[in-house]
Amino acid sequence: MGRPSVPILSTDRIARAAMDLVTATGGFTIPDLARKLKVSPSSLYNHVTGREQIVELLREIAMSEVELPELDGPWAEVVAAIMRSYRRSYARYPRLIPLMTAYPVSSPHAVEMYNALALTLTRASFGPDETLHIITLIDNFVLGSALDAAAPETPWGSSPDVAPEFAAALATGDHRPGRADEAFEFGLTVLLRGIGGP
Amino acid sequence: MGRPSVPILSTDRIARAAMDLVTATGGFTIPDLARKLKVSPSSLYNHVTGREQIVELLREIAMSEVELPELDGPWAEVVAAIMRSYRRSYARYPRLIPLMTAYPVSSPHAVEMYNALALTLTRASFGPDETLHIITLIDNFVLGSALDAAAPETPWGSSPDVAPEFAAALATGDHRPGRADEAFEFGLTVLLRGIGGP
Repeated sequence: MGRPSVPILSTDRIARAAMDLVTATGGFTIPDLARKLKVSPSSLYNHVTGREQIVELLREIAMSEVELPELDGPWAEVVAAIMRSYRRSYARYPRLIPLMTAYPVSSPHAVEMYNALALTLTRASFGPDETLHIITLIDNFVLGSALDAAAPETPWGSSPDVAPEFAAALATGDHRPGRADEAFEFGLTVLLRGIGGP
Repeated sequence: MGRPSVPILSTDRIARAAMDLVTATGGFTIPDLARKLKVSPSSLYNHVTGREQIVELLREIAMSEVELPELDGPWAEVVAAIMRSYRRSYARYPRLIPLMTAYPVSSPHAVEMYNALALTLTRASFGPDETLHIITLIDNFVLGSALDAAAPETPWGSSPDVAPEFAAALATGDHRPGRADEAFEFGLTVLLRGIGGP
């Protein structure tokens, strides 16, 4: 047995290399990943069952940064705290987002967050169907907002086609740091108001 | 001058090849695109100024499928109709979404939709700052929902960690076609209710 000339392969190294590829290119393939790690594709399969497991490892990296609040406060505050932390985590990995929604969730940290949301909404007397709809709404809004948080400070370019009403709206936000954060807080308030009580 | 052995290069062919790459891999690079079109990178630059223009061509493909309603109805109905059509278009191109939010918007069809939203909200007496916030909320929710529309029918896998409250919620939606559509309509109603009047 020779001494290994590269660090020993592990699920952790595989996940980090896949994350680097996703961040740089928007995706990963098993052959690309093997090339990046300087191993054969078959060595990868000694550590992971395939692409789907690697996607779950990536989800776990992003979700492990979500901080869950104490769950015994008023439901709207608990939900808002989870949404803020969830958005912050995914804003770090915008190109990961379409991969996350393309595969069924099973990572333990993700399930923990969804458990916390479902428990909080159930305690607030929302029924199971409403709970699922609200969770989906939270996911859709948070992931869209995480993409916006990673967007340029000025997400709309100048164009001769911009009409006066849109120009007036744009003038209130353009070139302002914190634009995406403010828009997220506005959306969060609208959402919670719109959900109302059970 | 010999007869060209491949179809003549055009911005349209470049955009379609870039869309194929994004759909297959999540992104594109100029060298990959040149290889796919069997031309040199420098030939590409005879037709497009660079990556940013290609991204706008892709946005234009997705946005040209958005159908704008008559703008003279009640504002909430106009906004809902735009949101439904906007989501349907992007649900066809989920892996395009992070590229869309990473570059400033200038494609004519996109500007036309934002003009319609701004005009509708302004006529409904929302101020320019609220108009920008509502437009951003619409973008975030619609793009997140478009990703969800492209998600598997059962977006949550089974896991031993699922707690009873989350399991009860999941049981109401799993394996049901139309799950994402229903959740979008629920979210749309919540959003419009939460926005309320100006």
